Amino acid sequence: MIPIADNLHIMNPIIANALKERDPVPLKKTAEHCRNVNAYAMDINLGPLKHNAEEVITFVIETVQETFEGRLLLDSVQSEVLEAGITACRKPPIINGFSLEKAKLTAILPLADKYQTEIIGFLINEQGQVPLRAEERLEVASQLVTKAEERGVSLERVIIDPVLVPLSWQDGARYNRELLEVINLLPQFFAKSIRTIAGLSNLGAGSPDRATRATVEANFILMLAAAKLDFILMDVTQKSNLDALNLSHLLLGEKVFTWEEVKS
Amino acid sequence: MIPIADNLHIMNPIIANALKERDPVPLKKTAEHCRNVNAYAMDINLGPLKHNAEEVITFVIETVQETFEGRLLLDSVQSEVLEAGITACRKPPIINGFSLEKAKLTAILPLADKYQTEIIGFLINEQGQVPLRAEERLEVASQLVTKAEERGVSLERVIIDPVLVPLSWQDGARYNRELLEVINLLPQFFAKSIRTIAGLSNLGAGSPDRATRATVEANFILMLAAAKLDFILMDVTQKSNLDALNLSHLLLGEKVFTWEEVKS
Repeated sequence: MIPIADNLHIMNPIIANALKERDPVPLKKTAEHCRNVNAYAMDINLGPLKHNAEEVITFVIETVQETFEGRLLLDSVQSEVLEAGITACRKPPIINGFSLEKAKLTAILPLADKYQTEIIGFLINEQGQVPLRAEERLEVASQLVTKAEERGVSLERVIIDPVLVPLSWQDGARYNRELLEVINLLPQFFAKSIRTIAGLSNLGAGSPDRATRATVEANFILMLAAAKLDFILMDVTQKSNLDALNLSHLLLGEKVFTWEEVKS
Repeated sequence: MIPIADNLHIMNPIIANALKERDPVPLKKTAEHCRNVNAYAMDINLGPLKHNAEEVITFVIETVQETFEGRLLLDSVQSEVLEAGITACRKPPIINGFSLEKAKLTAILPLADKYQTEIIGFLINEQGQVPLRAEERLEVASQLVTKAEERGVSLERVIIDPVLVPLSWQDGARYNRELLEVINLLPQFFAKSIRTIAGLSNLGAGSPDRATRATVEANFILMLAAAKLDFILMDVTQKSNLDALNLSHLLLGEKVFTWEEVKS
């Protein structure tokens, strides 16, 4: 399971302020941290940009790339932001993402063809909802891949996000149990390898304190790893997340097992 | 995932001494602990018994049953011990267990028919070995179930143990990665629900200290739960194991989710 940082997010007040002030320092610090923990990629989520959208995303990407050499996920619902971002990226970016919602199919998905990028496909139906049951989600996945292929985006360039939901939702845990099932079933459903991603930070939304949130995140990392998720989008400044990820690599033989590594 | 205690084991010096002295107190204490943590069952493993085998197993079972009202797993390779044990059990026992090894097929498996009990089937081949790859293990599972059915033991009465191995084995982590795969695949492989069990205490054999062992056990509990293992045989005196099991129940919606439960 490969870590992708979700730390460069508009909901973080430090990032929000850096954008307002065009201050590169907090962006560089975030990028430096992501580099230090060997994140494979960074997700860039600036929220809806009303003014100077192209200039803002270009500023952020150029700043981040001075420090972070991994890939970038461009997380936006604005096609003009995505296009400016794609243009500014030195390494092949990943568009994050599309779903069966009409606006996403018409405005976002075609960019993956136009710029020959990879793109994340959310298992969200036309009504903008996450289905509960695994079979319903697989049906959405099937439709997503069909739509992508119609637009010239092959299965190999789609990464499926089955949408992890907050535990505080009604039936949140049941949704996430079905999510694990979907991650397990997707490769055989498509009769070939398809990659998957999930965003961990949703899980603990509404938790009473940081420690409780850290507990559910760390433990769910092990579950996602057991289900063979490919990419995990998470807070890489949270040490317990990195520890859990490292343990998952050791327990699954994805790095050489030693007792010293477990203890460290 | 349902907990079964592996604490009544001859490798525990307190238990070994209690057997030698016919001292019921340590047996009762173990049984009391298993009752207090709501273990579904207790595994009774007295090792090979040379003298007074039937009397010893009867003594243990009668003592344990005074305190523990759950079910018992009878863990022995001696058919006379199993028969005496089955006769002493108040609740339906589970025989633990058989494999494709000839001695097990001829001496152990028939007891499940004779006494109409459930029986655990280890995914161990005729040569007494655990296959590495999931497909090989499924082939062993298929042969096991065929042998059981030939002997009058239906699929519903077989519980499959895909054999968790020590991380300290060469390729131990790879073996256990395949084990998770097998647990996931077994239900659809048999096109109906078949139950699974795994023994956790093997995992940390050879660990340098108790804390390291506790870490790998707790984390692997989450992975086994994600793979939808039915029964976990484990040390129920280890609080971190109980905490991990409780978290797995919360995260998978197997008990009502509250943040208070996560914190407790």
